[in-house]
Amino acid sequence: MTRNHIYSHTSAENALDRRSVEMDFEIERIAELVEGEKARVIQLQFPEGLKRYGPDVAKRIRQQIDVTVLLSGNPCYGACDLDYDGDVDLLVHFGHAEIPALAAQKVHFVEVRSDVDVIPVVNEALGLIKGPRVGIVTNVQHVHTLGSVRGCLESAGLQCSIGSGDGRIKYPGQVLGCNFSSARAVDVDEYLYIGGGAFHALGVALATGKRVVAADPFLHRTSIPDADLIVKQRYALITKALDARTFCILAGTKTGQRRLDLAFELVEQAVKRGYDAYTVTINELTPWTLYQFPAEAYVNTACPRIAIDDASLFKAPMLTPIEFEMVLGKRDLGEYTLDEFLGG
Amino acid sequence: MTRNHIYSHTSAENALDRRSVEMDFEIERIAELVEGEKARVIQLQFPEGLKRYGPDVAKRIRQQIDVTVLLSGNPCYGACDLDYDGDVDLLVHFGHAEIPALAAQKVHFVEVRSDVDVIPVVNEALGLIKGPRVGIVTNVQHVHTLGSVRGCLESAGLQCSIGSGDGRIKYPGQVLGCNFSSARAVDVDEYLYIGGGAFHALGVALATGKRVVAADPFLHRTSIPDADLIVKQRYALITKALDARTFCILAGTKTGQRRLDLAFELVEQAVKRGYDAYTVTINELTPWTLYQFPAEAYVNTACPRIAIDDASLFKAPMLTPIEFEMVLGKRDLGEYTLDEFLGG
Repeated sequence: MTRNHIYSHTSAENALDRRSVEMDFEIERIAELVEGEKARVIQLQFPEGLKRYGPDVAKRIRQQIDVTVLLSGNPCYGACDLDYDGDVDLLVHFGHAEIPALAAQKVHFVEVRSDVDVIPVVNEALGLIKGPRVGIVTNVQHVHTLGSVRGCLESAGLQCSIGSGDGRIKYPGQVLGCNFSSARAVDVDEYLYIGGGAFHALGVALATGKRVVAADPFLHRTSIPDADLIVKQRYALITKALDARTFCILAGTKTGQRRLDLAFELVEQAVKRGYDAYTVTINELTPWTLYQFPAEAYVNTACPRIAIDDASLFKAPMLTPIEFEMVLGKRDLGEYTLDEFLGG
Repeated sequence: MTRNHIYSHTSAENALDRRSVEMDFEIERIAELVEGEKARVIQLQFPEGLKRYGPDVAKRIRQQIDVTVLLSGNPCYGACDLDYDGDVDLLVHFGHAEIPALAAQKVHFVEVRSDVDVIPVVNEALGLIKGPRVGIVTNVQHVHTLGSVRGCLESAGLQCSIGSGDGRIKYPGQVLGCNFSSARAVDVDEYLYIGGGAFHALGVALATGKRVVAADPFLHRTSIPDADLIVKQRYALITKALDARTFCILAGTKTGQRRLDLAFELVEQAVKRGYDAYTVTINELTPWTLYQFPAEAYVNTACPRIAIDDASLFKAPMLTPIEFEMVLGKRDLGEYTLDEFLGG
């Protein structure tokens, strides 16, 4: 297998340079698939963090096999967003695991696992873990390390659980930004999350209400995400939206983010209660696309993370459907529930 | 018919306030169509300049008839971009004439004609027109005025022609930003363009190489677009692209902007000549989406106007396919030809 070495130890001072990541784009496997399926035109789709490798990966595929290679130029943040149409014989989607419940046709997923050693940062995390029952969760880049992480924690006398998720989750212990079913599947005192970024670890804390120790193997940094702070921000926005009379309900059109029926139902509920409400369908939701759609509050039925992670970018409260039900009085204000895309 | 009065004479000083436009969104006609086709879910699509009326139009339709109304939140700049999918029984597309060659199914076009009086600014334009043979062109908002414009010009002793366009053009004298076939259809000395903005008038000048007098009935302003300046800018970008070794060829995925075969052919031509070239498919082309796709020059096979009108927004030369053929040596550098989407 051919690997691209993209980060190296050039400076001990710079935390980013501690990343030593090799990425496997599975060029030979893709060439085999193209040959086996007699594909004439394939499209490569990368998430934002990997998009810049696209032209090189395309070139390496064309060096192996005679096929027309397209790169998707549209933004992509998950396997919920598969970008291809009738012109494409095979979509190769990089950087995410398949979402089994979506049962996508003519798609090959290259998960681009990381070969970073997670054990050093897990050892450091041991100092923060209280236990005794710990649920281990991660994103797809590190799912293959969970066995050794479990060994490491058990050696320290902790009881470990790795839960199986629902129909949207491919691997035990895997979480998505919009699905924490594998975390909820285990009865534990707290969670250890392995992976970079604040996005998933915070989600585990919000979805379970439990303490999470986040261990970032790239930056070799541990942290405890502050879900309470986010919940307080959410209640502030919910409170602000209680004064709103006009709501814009957003319905996403990306493959795995469609909840049009939910959008219809929310509009109906709002209108029934005397509010003004209308539905806007949108592919890529940005703050500036909403300038055209005046409302005192927005409700996003597409990606559940946009409301949470991009809250400060919107001029008016951006609510999740669950938060909107609180505003409508359909749901008790007492307990905060994270919006998720759950599978069967 | 119900009309929305959106601009009024509040200040003689402010040119914008000279617009007195009433817009007909054809609410009753839409309700009839919904009833006739037993549509359960309709989607309204407005171009950027009209999008803000969407929520009100949706409300007025719902007051007439029981139907679920969605608003398309995606950017839209022409009838080449029809945004609907299987969830929608009928798309109502506002502000553009149908492109006959696209033969769109389940779409109703509400052209939103302007009732602004164009004769005052045409009378002013008479002072700039040299003649004697004048071609009259306009956008769809004013096509119904061309008879009286012709009368006005003929009274002044000019010979008028109003040409029929090709398969992408619905009305005699109508031009699109990407199709000036109705202008080329007539043998004249110069053109009179009726309409707001610089976009179409400049296109007529670039596409025909002839002098154009632009008459803006909203601002009551006449002008002569400087096509030479644009042509000089284009040659400067073409010259810069002569040094490029890596080209990114953009293939648009909007309904009426697809030229994937052309993109493939351009990549093949480039590779044959020893250049690096790759194809990126994209729905909404913006400068920042290209940051992920490094290249020394870009070639846009989607909307022909992006290269021309947004030239300064891109870090590297953004060429039209015709300009790229000049760079490749396939086409003579001597005569500048505007890229157009031509119909049969």
